[in-house]
Amino acid sequence: MSTLAPAAVLYEAKKPLRIEEVQVLPPQAGEVTVRMKAAGVCHSDLHVMKGDLSMPMPIILGHEGSGVIEAVGEGVTSVEVGDHVILVWRGSCGKCEYCSNGRPALCDMGTAMRFTGLMPDGTTRFQNSAGESIRHYAGVSAFSSLSTMPQASVVKIPKDVSFEHAALIGCGVITGVGAVEKAARVQPSSTVAVIGCGGIGLNIVQAARMAGARQIIAVDKFSRKEADARQFGATDYVDVNAGDPVQAIKDLTDGKGVDYAFEAYGSGKTAEQAFDATKKGGMCVMVGITSAADRASINVNQLVYAEKTLRGSLYGSTQPRKDLLLLIAMHQSGRLMLDELITKRYPLEGINEAYDALQRGEVARSLIVFE
Amino acid sequence: MSTLAPAAVLYEAKKPLRIEEVQVLPPQAGEVTVRMKAAGVCHSDLHVMKGDLSMPMPIILGHEGSGVIEAVGEGVTSVEVGDHVILVWRGSCGKCEYCSNGRPALCDMGTAMRFTGLMPDGTTRFQNSAGESIRHYAGVSAFSSLSTMPQASVVKIPKDVSFEHAALIGCGVITGVGAVEKAARVQPSSTVAVIGCGGIGLNIVQAARMAGARQIIAVDKFSRKEADARQFGATDYVDVNAGDPVQAIKDLTDGKGVDYAFEAYGSGKTAEQAFDATKKGGMCVMVGITSAADRASINVNQLVYAEKTLRGSLYGSTQPRKDLLLLIAMHQSGRLMLDELITKRYPLEGINEAYDALQRGEVARSLIVFE
Repeated sequence: MSTLAPAAVLYEAKKPLRIEEVQVLPPQAGEVTVRMKAAGVCHSDLHVMKGDLSMPMPIILGHEGSGVIEAVGEGVTSVEVGDHVILVWRGSCGKCEYCSNGRPALCDMGTAMRFTGLMPDGTTRFQNSAGESIRHYAGVSAFSSLSTMPQASVVKIPKDVSFEHAALIGCGVITGVGAVEKAARVQPSSTVAVIGCGGIGLNIVQAARMAGARQIIAVDKFSRKEADARQFGATDYVDVNAGDPVQAIKDLTDGKGVDYAFEAYGSGKTAEQAFDATKKGGMCVMVGITSAADRASINVNQLVYAEKTLRGSLYGSTQPRKDLLLLIAMHQSGRLMLDELITKRYPLEGINEAYDALQRGEVARSLIVFE
Repeated sequence: MSTLAPAAVLYEAKKPLRIEEVQVLPPQAGEVTVRMKAAGVCHSDLHVMKGDLSMPMPIILGHEGSGVIEAVGEGVTSVEVGDHVILVWRGSCGKCEYCSNGRPALCDMGTAMRFTGLMPDGTTRFQNSAGESIRHYAGVSAFSSLSTMPQASVVKIPKDVSFEHAALIGCGVITGVGAVEKAARVQPSSTVAVIGCGGIGLNIVQAARMAGARQIIAVDKFSRKEADARQFGATDYVDVNAGDPVQAIKDLTDGKGVDYAFEAYGSGKTAEQAFDATKKGGMCVMVGITSAADRASINVNQLVYAEKTLRGSLYGSTQPRKDLLLLIAMHQSGRLMLDELITKRYPLEGINEAYDALQRGEVARSLIVFE
């Protein structure tokens, strides 16, 4: 029996999200229903809203979230009703070659959920009042106050973790920290540049600080980001409005560039800047998502002669089922800043306003807080 | 006191090398003079001859070589007159951060020698009959029967190693094998594609075989390369004249692409093909050098969503001073094929003919053999 619940539905790119009551179908075998408590206002969803990344619609977006298990389907063993969970936006099968190799973000099941907007069985658990199926986003659809998903899309957490912290850890934090610790493996005493200081970029900055980088150059276009970035550990700030950021990064590093450059803005142009700002022998990690056709043009000889490495990092190249819990422990031990990430809180009804503020560069991370 | 010796001098791009007697100046402090015995006809020199990579001229090219120490300058301790040596085309200072980090190919001293054509003191040890200075190439100028260079540009080898084998090991072998073992770290049971089956590509193929790859797809445009590649361990061959090589590689790998793709042809286009043929989570290694302005266009989301890694590898990302000796041992133990690389031998006077044959795709590796 389905339940009515308020959700933010995207019917058409470039149009506002529509807040409406949707039917949430009960969990089938191996599935759970989550009562959402907090959801992050992350840039990745914005790409779908703006039409940069096409998805079948209508769809309920939102992928960074936390909540309480409301119902479990047959055969669910990892969680019980009442458990607190973080949403995992790349649910993984646990059996394929990628899962076996410790790279669950690449699992075909999770990838298919992301790109089709369907559950693994090819159907959806949302309907609108007209009886029309509504797609899921990344298997989790955090912008619905109730959401049904595979049990692989949730990780149980201790009940003393705040839902706001849990939501942030579920995407921005694990993606940023993982990019530093797992993808780049930033070494002590190294130099780092971070292009884009939003929710993910700030976590890259703080992870670089935790890794012992001696110089952390934050790069952004919005003036408020300098204070944000310095709070998280940046030693230098480059305002892209003031000139070529690659030259600015080189000027700050004796003309050499940085050992590790991270692209956390999401565009071909900033990807090229990150690559060009990477030192001989260094690594450039692309974290930001951009429009589907966006490309970066790389000088081949520079790649070879300077032995640069360019890699993409998805979900921080982590194993969320264990790494989410490690991040909770890192926060509890005082090393990982979380409260400082949250600029603003909105009810679900304020979600369009929250995305407008994100685009204006007014926030690090905002949260949708459910009642 | 200088010595007259025959050498192949490049006076102008797109013109034949001129064989003439040049004055070879004696070794200064820390330098040695090598009597050349064998030199490889490698594609990298061709880029300078064709004008794809600009260098000050006149210049004596050649970077893959072996010979006998003819004279040593003051303070030389690593070799004595009469020692057999392999030329190292990126002499390294042994003291900078790159040398200390085990990445001597990135040493600033070696890089400067390569791009200026000068000894570290900013002068040259060659003159033509008009008294004009002639530049060095990569510090070694193997296309001269006598060549003066820093002691850092030679590695002493046992006298029972043939000069032909030694020359090959000095560039094509170490670059190809290193790209597999050091840069990509190819794992047993993995799948590999190699675009370009010249002297370096064939060594990538044989190193992939030694690393235990279960599928090795060789890609080339010249028909003779299929037999070459299969001899070195390729399990499949893709003729680029028969259609899109990326699709062909995917067709051979259940639509997935390969765990490791190597670009050993040297162009932006083949770099893009190698990247596109790399599987989710896989690694693409660029080995080939191309013209200075040549670029590869990379889809950013593909990099991130598929977590691909793209890296350049110079000199096989090795430490030549020790790895050259390991390769000799690998050949002596029967694992590394060397004789099979050699298609043809030429005297120095035949060098223009040798390069014509290389461009026509008629050879794997040819050698210039000095008297």
